[in-house]
Amino acid sequence: MKKLSEQYIIDYLSSDTTLPSNIIGIGDDTAVIERDTNCELITKDLLIEDQHFRLRYGSPAQLARKALHVNLSDIAAMGGTPLAILLGLSIPLTLPLDYLTSFLTAFKEECNKANVHLIGGDTTHSPQGFIISITAIGQADKTHIKYRSGATEKNVLCLLGYAGDAHAGLLLLENNQPDCQPLKDAFLAPTALIEEGAWLGKQTAVTAMLDTSDGIYLDLKRLSAASQVGAILNIDTLPLSPSLSQASEALPVSPIECALIGGEDYGLLFTVQATELKALKESFSRHFNIPFTVIGVMTQQPGLVLQQNNKPFECHYQPFSHFHEEQ
Amino acid sequence: MKKLSEQYIIDYLSSDTTLPSNIIGIGDDTAVIERDTNCELITKDLLIEDQHFRLRYGSPAQLARKALHVNLSDIAAMGGTPLAILLGLSIPLTLPLDYLTSFLTAFKEECNKANVHLIGGDTTHSPQGFIISITAIGQADKTHIKYRSGATEKNVLCLLGYAGDAHAGLLLLENNQPDCQPLKDAFLAPTALIEEGAWLGKQTAVTAMLDTSDGIYLDLKRLSAASQVGAILNIDTLPLSPSLSQASEALPVSPIECALIGGEDYGLLFTVQATELKALKESFSRHFNIPFTVIGVMTQQPGLVLQQNNKPFECHYQPFSHFHEEQ
Repeated sequence: MKKLSEQYIIDYLSSDTTLPSNIIGIGDDTAVIERDTNCELITKDLLIEDQHFRLRYGSPAQLARKALHVNLSDIAAMGGTPLAILLGLSIPLTLPLDYLTSFLTAFKEECNKANVHLIGGDTTHSPQGFIISITAIGQADKTHIKYRSGATEKNVLCLLGYAGDAHAGLLLLENNQPDCQPLKDAFLAPTALIEEGAWLGKQTAVTAMLDTSDGIYLDLKRLSAASQVGAILNIDTLPLSPSLSQASEALPVSPIECALIGGEDYGLLFTVQATELKALKESFSRHFNIPFTVIGVMTQQPGLVLQQNNKPFECHYQPFSHFHEEQ
Repeated sequence: MKKLSEQYIIDYLSSDTTLPSNIIGIGDDTAVIERDTNCELITKDLLIEDQHFRLRYGSPAQLARKALHVNLSDIAAMGGTPLAILLGLSIPLTLPLDYLTSFLTAFKEECNKANVHLIGGDTTHSPQGFIISITAIGQADKTHIKYRSGATEKNVLCLLGYAGDAHAGLLLLENNQPDCQPLKDAFLAPTALIEEGAWLGKQTAVTAMLDTSDGIYLDLKRLSAASQVGAILNIDTLPLSPSLSQASEALPVSPIECALIGGEDYGLLFTVQATELKALKESFSRHFNIPFTVIGVMTQQPGLVLQQNNKPFECHYQPFSHFHEEQ
């Protein structure tokens, strides 16, 4: 029997559909509508109370930031620049007006900080739970857009940002662990790599990109599949933050498991032409100050191979899934 | 104390914001982004189980149609043509796979019928209730867009479509009344006036437009306020469908109340230069076969005056509101 999975729905909706040549639909971090050389990028994300967030874990300002940045991250992952936001809210009568006002104030502030315009939305009552539905619109020159499908054999696999912090933060919150606030904040109020994504979009050496919203293991599988290549991932090289390394005793799983299968980090996973790597990395470090780490290489042989100390590493971790599906 | 209302949120989000001159934000049926002479129209609507729909009332195909058409209606109400759709779903584990598959199949079919492309979305698990979040993207020539703010004194107030059917259908469903299926269907599977809206957009005689998603009484108030004029609405002239007229004994309220305050009809309410009315109506009837009814006139004096047999009519009906707020 077929199981209810996100992939099932994506496959179902994208089968037997023909789009005009100027529209690229389901399958990347955003949809793309070409308008001459300038392209529009469109994405949407739903955040559901007690599925994606719990009110008691963080402040309304953190929730507002998260709701915005998970969408901006999709624009960044395409190499684009965000332009406008539509905000849909479904609000339970039990939500205090103070909470809502703080959320709205913070949302406007975060839009201003990210230089995006709040242009519309929809507001309804919710019978149960606070629901946030955001649509983000961005733009990019046609030649700057990075798809998941552009990686080729021998491309170097790179990651911007740390891996595993957000998942560790979620586990700490769910287990009522004190302290480790930076990890909790990584989950509660992530930062989309907006400028970094737009910068990488302009680099011809970058061949494919997506954000690590669902964890490196799963997101790398998607990049590999879309590009029809394989990958070797060296898990020794996964960039763990100082906070994550220090928190290992408080965590129910290893930092490496957080880094591999933990979602919601909103780092950028991308591939680079090997001959251009050194120059790209040097140029990046002149512009930005976040970790740029080489974590693997793309291979002709399909499939994802994990290595630790140059030996095969079996991944028995269960990737995060909204439907607890098999990947 | 300030009350939690949709208007409060709209006012809060749209205050103190400055948009670039090429973007028109909150306040109309869609946001507008100008791109040379061609404009993009963007709207989003959330449909929440047990707030906007109940699974037991209709088929998954009807729900799919409704979810799509409430968004297409916003594009039509601006005088635009729909282009693309993003579909966000939050799915409870209790939703049968058969139901979901039927919903997805119908959604694709409805997109095809409406000539719009399904280009993306988001799928998550829902802890409670089926949630449908749609973003619709349309387009229109800059000169064809109809805002709510364009009406002037002596413009004739017109309505496309019948009034009150959907609200009557909802009341019949909620009261377990048998029969009257056409009214129930009007609520369960509305038809956005896609071609009619695009046609009206091209008519210079049409000065302002919006859809009757929240009921004529409230939507006319919005049009009047945006245009800074008043209106006289002749309630004798409200177009009641044969089904609604026949159903009055089965309904807990009068057909006129359904027509005035009932939402979700997705008719088009618009204003026309008086001298052009005759020619416009004749031309319309050569292209389309749905009711085009003159229901009032715009006035210099602000405020909404209801008349019945040329005498003032006091409206004590409580307009529909997601938050049961005062209007």
